[in-house]
Amino acid sequence: MKISIVGVGLLGGSLALQAKEKGLAEKIIGVDANPANAERALELGIVDEILTLEEAVQTTDLVILATPVDVITRLLPTVLDMAHDESVIMDLGSTKELICKAVENHPRRSQYVAAHPIAGTENSGPDAAFPGLLKRKIMILCEKERSSNYAFEMAVMLSHQMEMRLSFMNAADHDLHLAYVSHLSHISSFALGVTVLDKEKDEKRIFEMAGSGFSSTVRLAKSSPDMWAPIFTQNTQNISSALGAYIRRLQYFKEVIDSQDDAKARDLMNQANEIRRVLQGIDSKLASM
Amino acid sequence: MKISIVGVGLLGGSLALQAKEKGLAEKIIGVDANPANAERALELGIVDEILTLEEAVQTTDLVILATPVDVITRLLPTVLDMAHDESVIMDLGSTKELICKAVENHPRRSQYVAAHPIAGTENSGPDAAFPGLLKRKIMILCEKERSSNYAFEMAVMLSHQMEMRLSFMNAADHDLHLAYVSHLSHISSFALGVTVLDKEKDEKRIFEMAGSGFSSTVRLAKSSPDMWAPIFTQNTQNISSALGAYIRRLQYFKEVIDSQDDAKARDLMNQANEIRRVLQGIDSKLASM
Repeated sequence: MKISIVGVGLLGGSLALQAKEKGLAEKIIGVDANPANAERALELGIVDEILTLEEAVQTTDLVILATPVDVITRLLPTVLDMAHDESVIMDLGSTKELICKAVENHPRRSQYVAAHPIAGTENSGPDAAFPGLLKRKIMILCEKERSSNYAFEMAVMLSHQMEMRLSFMNAADHDLHLAYVSHLSHISSFALGVTVLDKEKDEKRIFEMAGSGFSSTVRLAKSSPDMWAPIFTQNTQNISSALGAYIRRLQYFKEVIDSQDDAKARDLMNQANEIRRVLQGIDSKLASM
Repeated sequence: MKISIVGVGLLGGSLALQAKEKGLAEKIIGVDANPANAERALELGIVDEILTLEEAVQTTDLVILATPVDVITRLLPTVLDMAHDESVIMDLGSTKELICKAVENHPRRSQYVAAHPIAGTENSGPDAAFPGLLKRKIMILCEKERSSNYAFEMAVMLSHQMEMRLSFMNAADHDLHLAYVSHLSHISSFALGVTVLDKEKDEKRIFEMAGSGFSSTVRLAKSSPDMWAPIFTQNTQNISSALGAYIRRLQYFKEVIDSQDDAKARDLMNQANEIRRVLQGIDSKLASM
């Protein structure tokens, strides 16, 4: 099988590396709008050859779109236009509703599978890619009833080769859920970074006192603007609701602190402590595969 | 030397364990208002004996207060009253201004050293203690000019035995800085936890989709309300300013997202990305000792 990876960054590159480890593809073709990225991916052995999008789509069995979500939305109809009858197209974008909508009436819709692997790090580009990134993570497949059996089974096979666990949901639920458990935590981290960096202008030594708790909370502020700006534009309403709810909680927290209401502060933190159950669940899920 | 640890939880317990490893104390005495904690610390070999506060202070050379900060503020004057002339008293609280104020005119003020080790995990209690917790971390000493040379050198020696790096600052700067790089990130995490847990009431499957990015950002929401409620009360003004600045940033972020202003969103995230410099600094600091 030949696989094309469109966007050879962290996610596309990591998938390519693991596909190679598993002997899944006789050849992996890379496509990237950024020539430096493409060349680097070739140098690192992530892909075997660099082609244009059209050449890649016409000569491979499986095309995986791993670019920012605005680019996926724009490319996907064109890629389906160019595809031959036997090929399968997947995307790995962090939003699903607008991407699915972009091809809902496309005559080749059934050759496409909408996917989102819940995996990533705060780093980006081909140099950030590594073969274990997808292992033990969840692969969400959306609108599976709109894909042909052949295309769907290809996506399932790929996920199994990546040692991922499958989860199925509709695109609207996906975007709502992800706003809360992924997009919101990135924004909370971006804003925390900017707030403390801003304070540093007056208090030069402020970061000398920062420890591992701060690092952990602010880690996602390193994430790529190229990846995240389009997610905000594609999932605006859900993110706005989640962020609004978060701001209201913080305002209430501030009122409680301003009034030095010890009992209410304890109550809030006891509620937050319930997150232990959730974090144990995430850890055991990742460990149990 | 005999050392008393008042509050044998994560921090006091970890210090005791490392002091034992280093052969620093012939005996470590534990004091804890919670008899179950005291017994558990004895069982785990963290301390050699449990005494009352008065017995402990009167028979040891170094008394370390490692309780929540409200308890430190309350106990410290009493402990100085009870101390004999040769003993040194330290506290490890996460706030410093009110604690120092509580003994500013105490006749034995010079026997006391105000300290804050930048170390911790989201877990608490004697079972969470482990000998490496303080290693390679920063020990902040405040108002060092108010401690006698003998007391100050005892604190320096202890820090070296713990393999910690020393930093000196005044109590007001300490509390201001910590509001931004520690207290704020805890609140951002507590509020994130509560926001998503609240949404889970309607969307039962929401946490199925959570990955390592969410875990990292929400980890501090597991922290102890008993430790944190008194910090909010002792550092109210600084925390309120930091939290106010954070809320304003988030509100601006929400406006940018609501108006789908791609350029402004990228600009904000590019600013946040500057945190890479800071995080590299924290990592290399922890690695270089």
